[in-house]
Amino acid sequence: MAERHDAVSVIITKRDGGTLSDDQIDWVVDAYTRGVVADEQMSSLTMAILQRGMTRAEISRWTAAMIASGQRLDFSDLGLPTADKHSTGGVGDKITLPLAPLVAVYGVAVPQLSGRGLGHTGGTLDKLESIPGWRADVSNADMRQQLIDVGAVICAAGTELAPADKKLYALRDVTGTVESIPMISASIMSKKIAEGTGVLVLDVKVGTGAFMKTLDDARELARTMVDLGADAGVVTTALLTDMSTPLGRGIGNALEVTESVEVLAGGGPADVVELTVELARAMLAGAGITDVDPADALRDGRAMDKWRQMIKAQGGDPDAPMPTAPLVEEVRAESDGFITRLDAMGAGMAAWRLGAGRARKDDILDLSAGVYLHKTLGEEVRKGDVIMTLHAESADRMPRGLAALGEACEGAGTVDIGDTPVDRHIILDRIGESTAPRSDR
Amino acid sequence: MAERHDAVSVIITKRDGGTLSDDQIDWVVDAYTRGVVADEQMSSLTMAILQRGMTRAEISRWTAAMIASGQRLDFSDLGLPTADKHSTGGVGDKITLPLAPLVAVYGVAVPQLSGRGLGHTGGTLDKLESIPGWRADVSNADMRQQLIDVGAVICAAGTELAPADKKLYALRDVTGTVESIPMISASIMSKKIAEGTGVLVLDVKVGTGAFMKTLDDARELARTMVDLGADAGVVTTALLTDMSTPLGRGIGNALEVTESVEVLAGGGPADVVELTVELARAMLAGAGITDVDPADALRDGRAMDKWRQMIKAQGGDPDAPMPTAPLVEEVRAESDGFITRLDAMGAGMAAWRLGAGRARKDDILDLSAGVYLHKTLGEEVRKGDVIMTLHAESADRMPRGLAALGEACEGAGTVDIGDTPVDRHIILDRIGESTAPRSDR
Repeated sequence: MAERHDAVSVIITKRDGGTLSDDQIDWVVDAYTRGVVADEQMSSLTMAILQRGMTRAEISRWTAAMIASGQRLDFSDLGLPTADKHSTGGVGDKITLPLAPLVAVYGVAVPQLSGRGLGHTGGTLDKLESIPGWRADVSNADMRQQLIDVGAVICAAGTELAPADKKLYALRDVTGTVESIPMISASIMSKKIAEGTGVLVLDVKVGTGAFMKTLDDARELARTMVDLGADAGVVTTALLTDMSTPLGRGIGNALEVTESVEVLAGGGPADVVELTVELARAMLAGAGITDVDPADALRDGRAMDKWRQMIKAQGGDPDAPMPTAPLVEEVRAESDGFITRLDAMGAGMAAWRLGAGRARKDDILDLSAGVYLHKTLGEEVRKGDVIMTLHAESADRMPRGLAALGEACEGAGTVDIGDTPVDRHIILDRIGESTAPRSDR
Repeated sequence: MAERHDAVSVIITKRDGGTLSDDQIDWVVDAYTRGVVADEQMSSLTMAILQRGMTRAEISRWTAAMIASGQRLDFSDLGLPTADKHSTGGVGDKITLPLAPLVAVYGVAVPQLSGRGLGHTGGTLDKLESIPGWRADVSNADMRQQLIDVGAVICAAGTELAPADKKLYALRDVTGTVESIPMISASIMSKKIAEGTGVLVLDVKVGTGAFMKTLDDARELARTMVDLGADAGVVTTALLTDMSTPLGRGIGNALEVTESVEVLAGGGPADVVELTVELARAMLAGAGITDVDPADALRDGRAMDKWRQMIKAQGGDPDAPMPTAPLVEEVRAESDGFITRLDAMGAGMAAWRLGAGRARKDDILDLSAGVYLHKTLGEEVRKGDVIMTLHAESADRMPRGLAALGEACEGAGTVDIGDTPVDRHIILDRIGESTAPRSDR
């Protein structure tokens, strides 16, 4: 069968700064998924896209073509509004764990397909696997039933969702073409749209520990994704949030589950609570619910009840103790003052080196490993106070974690102590149509 | 064994506009040749190079790395100066055929490694294979002996010369990354430098029938290649020559051999003679010979004698009649006037469609097929005069050749007849260190 196009002419169109036609995009994504367009042709095209960019219409069509490469879930017959959240990834970002049950409290179903971690940022599924018995793999039928019974499910995306994205993502990873806002946006949004959610809230991280280092880049990514959502009929808003310092105190899989349970119990670090509530507010607003304060459901135990149901539905024991690390090392303040900088990347790298993260996809994680911040940004310390503890399962990991702390910021280290306290602003900007009231109203 | 670099970091350096280090270039070219760097990584890098460019130092190192991937010939012990010519490819460009024996007349050895044609431009080896018995494949030992005995050899490049270039060229062809001046320059020069010539004259074609459509692009390519030659110790000059209209009257393999023999016999079209003599002058000047007029050796039969020796040494019969096409169709002038445009691409495409060229590497050529121009640019015609004849070996080819003539220049056709004669300037510019006197001195 003759092909409608040839790969070289598609590549040359983009290489020379042109706009790909709908038909070129449909063909090249489909032909790549079928193996008719070779890896070396797709990588050349992807580099051309990275250099030349894509119009909103091109990115939208590319996303649609990736969705069309596989199955698209549909929960519209559940009779419930659906809402989902996606974070671009940060250090200590366990927000999905309290957020999904919190939103479900208000009758909004949360079909949260999540991923695993690679590098210095953790993955939601890895965190939940710290809970004895919990299973990430849920069939589509069981996912649907859990949405009806519990209202929230956090599970692994099936291979049948956007297979073109799966293949392209692996290719971009080895060909130096990850850092393309059109490609990142299409990758995230193809999966989220295929997942069948009606409302999507994006948490776009900005800062040293995030993929986007500047507010401008993060805004561009957020704007691109919000537009893609609108094009696909998904009510999409984005919060730009600070990732120059870690979220909360626990970094590492079991440490983050413990902290999430604290939040669900009405406690937990103020920044984690604030972001969880803000994201819940945005998800609920997208579903038309603006007359509730989600902070209430954290305080009164309703979110905790949902959490326990959700964990049990996937085989987990919400009462089982979390694994703890046999080896703990303390890092102490070398002077009096305030913590004026606590670098997200340094802390994330340290947790990774301690065994909490993967260098390769098939690495086994040390679930109890990580970093616990006894002091966070802006807090006062006295010389000799414990700022953080490092947790490891094997002795060879500890020096690597310590070294990562010291090497961060080109050798400047992870923590600065100064004379004046600093304020932290978590929510930096909002993009999209949300009518959610601001917490500072 | 651990690799010194990883492909992604090399790609990212160039992607972001950086300069590749010598060590990065040496590694990536070698690792690609060994198969450690994958095709999809090299195509991504090549697209980044196409978009971002390379410095003179980078191109020079890249060229050296491609040479180092294989064998490098050395004729320095022959006790003879060596000179070679490379054309970037044009329509009716048979200049190598009279040029190699002409230069050899003056005691300069010509080790001319040539290629086969693809698309609308012919290949020197294809043309010579019109001569019954002639063989393109010559061993290195036989090549050396023929340089001693005859002084000129035109043969196929062995696979052991610059294998990295061979692999990369095939990759660029299918990934939309051919049109990169650094990559084109490195490809040509790696082969020519590996071939072991002391003097190199480049004939960089400009115009509709050439790869370079504008004088600016051609100058950049010529300057880049001249610099690469200088960096490698090869005396290199470039002539920029017109390829808006075909060279000579014959286009097609046997037709071009016949015309070359006319030139060697002291006749032939003025433009072919002029370019042959100019290129010979530049090659001789590079070898320090400036006190001769190569036009003499065309007139007095010495070049013809060398030609006959050269053809015989490779098994060919210089007295055998050339194959002629059984089918001939005439194209006649539709009005009186002067030929004001005779498009090289249109004529080249017609010859290709008639069977003189290849669409794929393993296509078999019709050696007698092609186009013969009874009238060329600037010549006067009367309505009904035969402007050109189309030659084909099978009847299905003829309508394709005629169609190509009509479709040229976006449907404007291949020939314009107007009221005022036009002059043709073949030599458009010179780049490099040549001290050759100009023919218009």
